[in-house]
Order: sequence, then C-alpha cells, then structure tokens
Amino acid sequence: MNIILLSGGSGKRLWPLSNDIRSKQFIKIFRCQDGTYESMVQRVYRQIKKADSDAVITVATSKTQVSALHNQLGDDVGISVEPCRRDTFPAIALATAYLADVMHVDPEEAVVVCPVDPYVEDAYFEALKSLAAQAGKGEANLVLMGIEPTYPSEKYGYIIPESAEHTAAVRTFKEKPTADVAGQYIAQGALWNGGVFAYKLKYVLDKARELIHYTDYYELFSRYETLTKISFDYAVVEKEEKIQVQRFSGQWKDLGTWNTLTEAMEESVVGKGVLNETCTGVHIVNEMDVPVLAMGLHDVVISASPEGILVSDKEQSSYIKPYVDQFEQQVMFAEKSWGSFRVLDVETKSMTIKVTLNPGHRMNYHSHRNRDEVWVVISGEGKTIVDGFEQAVNPGDVITMSAGCRHTVIAQTELKLIEVQLGEDINVHDKQKFELEY
Amino acid sequence: MNIILLSGGSGKRLWPLSNDIRSKQFIKIFRCQDGTYESMVQRVYRQIKKADSDAVITVATSKTQVSALHNQLGDDVGISVEPCRRDTFPAIALATAYLADVMHVDPEEAVVVCPVDPYVEDAYFEALKSLAAQAGKGEANLVLMGIEPTYPSEKYGYIIPESAEHTAAVRTFKEKPTADVAGQYIAQGALWNGGVFAYKLKYVLDKARELIHYTDYYELFSRYETLTKISFDYAVVEKEEKIQVQRFSGQWKDLGTWNTLTEAMEESVVGKGVLNETCTGVHIVNEMDVPVLAMGLHDVVISASPEGILVSDKEQSSYIKPYVDQFEQQVMFAEKSWGSFRVLDVETKSMTIKVTLNPGHRMNYHSHRNRDEVWVVISGEGKTIVDGFEQAVNPGDVITMSAGCRHTVIAQTELKLIEVQLGEDINVHDKQKFELEY
Repeated sequence: MNIILLSGGSGKRLWPLSNDIRSKQFIKIFRCQDGTYESMVQRVYRQIKKADSDAVITVATSKTQVSALHNQLGDDVGISVEPCRRDTFPAIALATAYLADVMHVDPEEAVVVCPVDPYVEDAYFEALKSLAAQAGKGEANLVLMGIEPTYPSEKYGYIIPESAEHTAAVRTFKEKPTADVAGQYIAQGALWNGGVFAYKLKYVLDKARELIHYTDYYELFSRYETLTKISFDYAVVEKEEKIQVQRFSGQWKDLGTWNTLTEAMEESVVGKGVLNETCTGVHIVNEMDVPVLAMGLHDVVISASPEGILVSDKEQSSYIKPYVDQFEQQVMFAEKSWGSFRVLDVETKSMTIKVTLNPGHRMNYHSHRNRDEVWVVISGEGKTIVDGFEQAVNPGDVITMSAGCRHTVIAQTELKLIEVQLGEDINVHDKQKFELEY
Repeated sequence: MNIILLSGGSGKRLWPLSNDIRSKQFIKIFRCQDGTYESMVQRVYRQIKKADSDAVITVATSKTQVSALHNQLGDDVGISVEPCRRDTFPAIALATAYLADVMHVDPEEAVVVCPVDPYVEDAYFEALKSLAAQAGKGEANLVLMGIEPTYPSEKYGYIIPESAEHTAAVRTFKEKPTADVAGQYIAQGALWNGGVFAYKLKYVLDKARELIHYTDYYELFSRYETLTKISFDYAVVEKEEKIQVQRFSGQWKDLGTWNTLTEAMEESVVGKGVLNETCTGVHIVNEMDVPVLAMGLHDVVISASPEGILVSDKEQSSYIKPYVDQFEQQVMFAEKSWGSFRVLDVETKSMTIKVTLNPGHRMNYHSHRNRDEVWVVISGEGKTIVDGFEQAVNPGDVITMSAGCRHTVIAQTELKLIEVQLGEDINVHDKQKFELEY
C-alpha cells in the first residue's frame, strides 16, 4: 500500500503541549505496552506498519516538521516537504509527484491519502487497504472513505451516497451543517467526510499537469511558492464525476481538542501528578519535572509544559485558541532532527538552554552574529568542532564560542549540554549555516 | 515598644509556594502601592514601623529562616536564633533574654509577643501598644489580646474574661472546641486567643530562671538543645493568677490555608495568568515565567512555583498537607542572606542552578568534596575568589572549579550566574565553609 499522510500545521488548541513549532501530532500522550509514550504520528505510523509491513509511507508536510518527524519516526520515513503552505491540492500533487519521480512508484498503483492524526483502531487500516484495492480496480477515479456518523456533528462535511451498499457512488457533498441539518443528512444516509480517499497515482499526476502544467517533482518543488492556494476538495473532489464512497463503521476520533483528547487517554495522569479522591473526570498531562496536585475538581483538564499551564473545564477547553493567541511567547521546547532543546532561563541579555543530542547526530555547523555562547557538557561523549578545531568532549568540559565563530557538536553517545547564550540581541534567526568538511 | 515576632516553622499548607525551607510568611503575595509585592513578614514589619518608628523588633526563629529574614527585612532586624525547635516557652525565654542581655532593654520595660503572620490593619498595632502600656502598669503579670470572634471557630483556643470591659481579668481558658461548644463560649462572652500577649521583661526573665535555671542569654543559647519542649501557654499562661485580657475588635485573619489567603488577596492573579470570562472565584498565584490559563473554573486556586503546581477547589485546599508530604522533592528555590537560587535542571550526575547575588553581598567561601562546578556570569559585575586567586568578573566570564577547590563570588552590582554542578553524588550537605581573609 502506498500512503500519503497529511501532517497539518501548528495548532494551539492543545496548548501548552502544542505551539508554533510543535503540532499536536507530536505530543507523546498514548501509553504503549512497554510503559513508554507515543505521539499520534508514531501511533498511526506503527499501526500502518502493523497492517502492512511493506507500506510505502510518505508524510506530506512543511519543512518546520521535518526535524520532529525524523526524530519520532526515524531517518527512513519518506517526507514530501512543502517549501511553504499552499493548501491541500498543491500538497497532494507534490506528494504524488514525489511518489512517482522520487520513489518511482508505478503510475497505475493506487495511493491512499489520509490525515496523520486520526485516533483509530486496526480496522481503520484494513479499510484503507480496501479503499486502495477499490481505487486499483479503476471503477472510479476517486474512492472516499465515508465514516458512519455517531452523532449529528457540526464539525464535519457530509457525503451522501447513492445507496447504503458498502461501496456506492457519491450522490453529493454537503458542507459543515448545523446540528439540526446534520440530523436530516444522517436520516438520508449521509456519512462523515474524514478527508480520507484513494486514487491511482496517474489520476492525480494528470490532474496536476492539467491544473498546474508541471514537468516533474523537482520542477514542481522549485516553483511551489508560486502556486495558488486551493483545497483538494474544491479543485478535484467536488468536480469529479467518477467518484465512489466506502462505508467505515469502526472507531474514528478526531483528537483536536483537550476534550476529545482526554477521552482517548487510557490514564488520568500522564507525567508527575496526583489526583485526590474528591476529583472526578480530571486529567493531568504534565511534561514538567515537578508534580501537579489536583484536589476537589470535576471534569477539568490540567496540562503543564515549558510553554505554560492550562487548567480548564473540559468543555470550555474547545474555546482556547483566542486566549493562547494573546500570549506573546518564545518557543520553550523543540524537537530537532538531531535531538531536542529546552529553554531553562531567559534574561534580557542571556538565555540558558538544555540541549540533548541523539547518539550519532550533530547540530548544523553554524555561527551567530550577535551572541557569544558557552557549552558545559553534562553527560555523554562526543566531539566539538569550533572554527575547524576538533576536540573530544566529556562531562564537565567547557567550550566558549565568541560571536562569529563557527561551531557544532557531534554526539557519540546521547550527549547533553547546557548552552548559555550571551548578547544584546538574542534571536533564533541569528544563525548562519556552513558546510562541514570532515 | 519592644516586640518579639514568633516566626514559625516550615509549612506545607501553602504548597507549592511554601516548602521545607520557605515558610508561608516569606511568600511575596500582597500588592504594594508601588506595584511590587511584599510577604507577610514584610507587611507586618512595615506596619509595626509605621505604628511606632522606634519599635525594637526581634524575630524569634530557627536558623533556617535567618537568611530569608535578612533578605526580606534587611541586615538591621534583630533576630533571636533558636539553635533547634523547642516549642514556645524556650523560644520566648530565649528571645526575652536576648532583649535583656544583648539589646540591653531595661527589665522593667514591657514587651509584646505576637506571631509574625497575622493579616491585620493598623488598628491591630495600636492595640499592641495598648497591651504593652497595660503590662507596663503592673496590674497583672500578663496581658493577653482577646480577639472578638466573628464566627464559632474550631481553630482557636478561647479566653473567657470576668467582664465585658475593654480590659478585664481572665476567668479561664478553653481549648479548641467543636463549633457547637464554641457557640456556647461566645454566648458567655469568650474571645479568641490569638497568641498575642505582653509582659514586663523581668517577669519572663524570672519565670525562665525559675523553670530553666539559666544565668544569661549566652548560657541559655549554648544549652538550648537540652531544654524540654513545652509551650508558653502550658508553662506560664495557664498557671498565672495575675492575668488580664484586652478586647480587640479590628480585622484579624490567620492566613494559614489557600482558602483564607486568597480571601485576603486584592487581585485575582499574581504573576502571569489569564482567567477567561467564565471563571468565577478563581485565584492564580504564579511564580513561574510562563503563563497560566484558567477556563471555566469556579472557586479554584491555582498556584505554580519551581516546586510544583497546585490546582484545588478552595475548600479542599485545607486538606493539602498529607498529599504534599508524599512528594519526595528537593528544594527548587531558596532565598539566602546574599540573594537567591533556583534549580533549573536536574540530571543524574549534574544540576544546573541560577544564582542571583544582591549588590554588595557574597556567598560563603566554601568547597565541595564530590562535585566540580562551572559558573557562567550572565549579568552584573563582581569578583570571584578561587583558591585565594581574585578575579574581576563580567557577563560571559566562565569560572571552572574542581572538587575541593575553595571559591566564592562577591557581587558589586546585582550579579547573576548559571552554576553547573557535576558529580556522582550531588548533595546540598557537601559543603565545607572557610574563613576568607581579604
């Protein structure tokens, strides 16, 4: 099975765990059997590999997520990087071209497109296979998944099929309705449109050639910024005549708010936290090293991260976005392809950061114009390169770097260091990268 | 007026703001007119000085609070340091001997004893003066303050006076009753015993000589550990025949729980925090640099500090202690006589701390057996002394210290540094102090 996972933009609805650079799909919140935690993207990736160990998985995303994807899924995952955000039609066209021109997938093969963050069981992936098989038959150009509604939701678009058969032609689509209207649609046999569909590769390649006039993946990538923003639904789905829908009745949850996310959590407490016996319906998701104590609360979610602390009535938590938008805050934690960093302290003319490098990984070789830096290695082994000078480093070693000096650190084992940045104008954009020859 | 302020032990009932080394009286929670915040002890100290600018104030406390007292009240405050905790009779005897033998107060002068942390208005301090004046007359050996009850509390002992006059003889004392019994006492004219009283210095000096057989303050101090634990109420008050009570009807609050503390707060939010419009009766006290967002909550207190995060129904917050007792946690923040420190990061073999020195102050000259340290100065100016070698330091300077090496830093301006501790066995007790000659 070829599968394109659409990994959407940053979301603030799960603040303080999601932020401008960490999207909700990267939050490690689901407990695995071995006691560790996995994120939405890790869970879906694992589930796909379980359903089809030969699946060719390509994540379509922006470059801001590439580091986190490699960090969480490893270096082998296929990534179709969008140079900028241009909505779903350009994104799917680019990922499809990537499959054809980079991965050399046969244009006659089927591909399934789905979001990276549904909360689903194994049956969902069997349904994806069925979707791909149906697309492969060529009866229709597009085969959509229609999710059997469990309530008259206002959050989803609806697909109205011609019949109640497992696979049916699509009669029409309906935009997100009011709850009343949704009830009427459901009475007519309507299904939720979860944005999951399959097609033969060549179908979207041809559509893209028709609508964007591109030659190949590389050419499309190079002029991606010039493309018009348009959704795949609007550009393709709604105009297609040969279109079918397959019913899906298994578990399918969209964990976009704290309310729905906590419903999917198996435990009340993730991280350090205590609920006293008078709490009911309370969830704690705590990424800090210090404990959270909750007493006498009902239907409340508490989440703490280096970005901030949320305490919300679960229903109210859906309305979080405008409040979070007003926080002017720098990013306090980020996953990178080489590891992660966390801001420990911010002062007017200094910033202190804890950097963790994964074994065998290294930072870019880089310099800063307006700040000096000091590294104190606190664990692990590796080497630093400062203005071309290599040095093995161990815990306790101190490296001082003046503004302008080129530097990197290469981890042999997992390596942690405290970085103190010093200067009048400390800014994440003050970074020049260089090729490292060694 | 001579006044002894009893500064009690560490309390966990206001966790996470109070901890093993920071007692509730040191939490800066009351907004001043200039927009800064003051603690209970700072508020009371300021109020006393306002009522009587010549007041001789002596704080009776354990040595663990001496640094915080100097930090918050300055170097001039008189402190009678208890070498260990021995309950209130030995503590008051020691403080009284301190006034006589160190401060050379005339034994005929009156002294007032009161807790360091009542939440009161200026009228309270006028009442203290009246208490002292009454004690000075010599009609009685002890003059107690009797607080007019506002409700039948189970939290206080009761004083039953002979009459309803402003100053009356005490008929009897009653232990903390049930609410029903408290109501009966109040119907008989009973008053709350707030632990506030006055006496002529020589009265307690004589009592102490009688019960402990000491010679002077210095001798008493040196054998303080050998004294029996006994309360002043039990040893003295309840046995005294010549005892009076003065009524006090002004505001008097005991801010011992989050519930009572938040009642006394003028603002809903101290520190970074946002309450959405659906919150009612919510208080946020946030000592962290990141925001707290509260949505849809009612009658809840949220407090965040480097020690942890509390989210509690206000009434439930009275029952916090056993939950906090189960947290095995190191101290993450402390005020010292020279400034303060905050733990930023804890790893198995390293700890990273932010140290702030007040202008003109310095750490003890000290060494550690089992850990190396690295200092990175991030702001301010001063000098370091490392194994006798002096060096001026400025932001960006790095000082490395091996285990065993003697070191200190002296702040000229306010000076901040990041300290990275490295070693197998990092422990607060691993500290040897030395005299510094310079």
